[in-house]
Amino acid sequence: MLSNITASFIIIGNEILSGRTQDKNLNYLAKILNNLGIALQEVRVIPDIESEIISTVKNLNKKYTYVFTSGGIGPTHDDITSLCIAKAFNDNLIINQEAKEILYKFYGSENVNEARMKMATLPSKAKLLNNPISSAPGFYLENVFVMAGIPKIFQAMVDCLVPILKVGSKIYNQEIKITLTESVIAKDFADLQKQFPEIIMGSYPFEGGTSLVFRATDLDILRKTVNLMKQNILSINSQAIIKIDE
Amino acid sequence: MLSNITASFIIIGNEILSGRTQDKNLNYLAKILNNLGIALQEVRVIPDIESEIISTVKNLNKKYTYVFTSGGIGPTHDDITSLCIAKAFNDNLIINQEAKEILYKFYGSENVNEARMKMATLPSKAKLLNNPISSAPGFYLENVFVMAGIPKIFQAMVDCLVPILKVGSKIYNQEIKITLTESVIAKDFADLQKQFPEIIMGSYPFEGGTSLVFRATDLDILRKTVNLMKQNILSINSQAIIKIDE
Repeated sequence: MLSNITASFIIIGNEILSGRTQDKNLNYLAKILNNLGIALQEVRVIPDIESEIISTVKNLNKKYTYVFTSGGIGPTHDDITSLCIAKAFNDNLIINQEAKEILYKFYGSENVNEARMKMATLPSKAKLLNNPISSAPGFYLENVFVMAGIPKIFQAMVDCLVPILKVGSKIYNQEIKITLTESVIAKDFADLQKQFPEIIMGSYPFEGGTSLVFRATDLDILRKTVNLMKQNILSINSQAIIKIDE
Repeated sequence: MLSNITASFIIIGNEILSGRTQDKNLNYLAKILNNLGIALQEVRVIPDIESEIISTVKNLNKKYTYVFTSGGIGPTHDDITSLCIAKAFNDNLIINQEAKEILYKFYGSENVNEARMKMATLPSKAKLLNNPISSAPGFYLENVFVMAGIPKIFQAMVDCLVPILKVGSKIYNQEIKITLTESVIAKDFADLQKQFPEIIMGSYPFEGGTSLVFRATDLDILRKTVNLMKQNILSINSQAIIKIDE
């Protein structure tokens, strides 16, 4: 693991599991956490079932520094995330006055019906994550951050929580793109991994070549490893490198 | 749950967790399983770490009818899925003769080096899932289906395993797209859910309206529910329906 600050992400949504919707939030969150030096260690996609949400939150919030969730905080009956978070923390739901004021201001008090008020009904210990797009706030409670599933709103909430998070050591990524197939460089690549076990090395084929990815928190050792692999590749084929981060 | 045939999907890949790669396999698999009447109940994204892969497989293969995996079956040292599956089943890795012959035929025996032979080194009890794209086969062992991470190859392997799977009751999906916001229909929608608990009902806002999704195995009750919701919506606003499945 490259960081001792760790995270998991729970995607709550029948629509992802049925194939109706393609998730776009994981990739957005993963990139942001990577830039912050936070190691995203596990993602789960689970259905809108109370017992599943509660047990998953209770399991993961002990294992990781942070837990992020997406989905299930809207005004309809299938939005049960806030209730489940309250139950997972032995907390109860109350009308959050700050959230209520935000909704009143955004919609006008005459337009805030019972369904909309559900979006201001949050665990009593929740702190708000503001949402500039649709006004209904996300929230966090201890180390669990609860956000909407709609990508535009999810992203706005993530941007809003970034300043709250602890930052880990910077994780550097370097890549060598080559025209060779994986099997040609596999032995050299494995030998280098043995020599530098602290570098996370991955090989990803694409049509027409292979992408070799190196990740580490120590930039000097990372550069040294990438340079050694470069020499290996050039000794196999002097024309094989398409692109290299140096 | 709409089906007693259940599934989970394990996405094995540091590249997904670091944000380098956006997963495209989940949505493909989810749609196919939905069409087969198999309920995808859980997805996990985990890193290329032996202990994590083994424990996740051992945990999920007891819980669900089927477990599918993607990633980690290539020729490089970071491809450890086959080894982990063998360990999860107390099996050992052997050279699979059928897989070896396929590789020999595809690459020519003179081009099959140690790294390529790794792709024919599979758990002794594995049965092959052929891969018309790059020849290196996926495999299955009991209820666990092991596939490549590259979307084109993953999809070819999924298509190849479909005839092997048990088929559940057909799951019907119907949708009403409306111009109204969720909060306007939330009460009617919740009341209908109480009346028809066997229907899985979800509400998904989009820019300019809301999509109401109804899923069930009983088409008559599904149609009845959709029709009742249609009447509710029309009584609020006779122009609100953008599209309806009937």
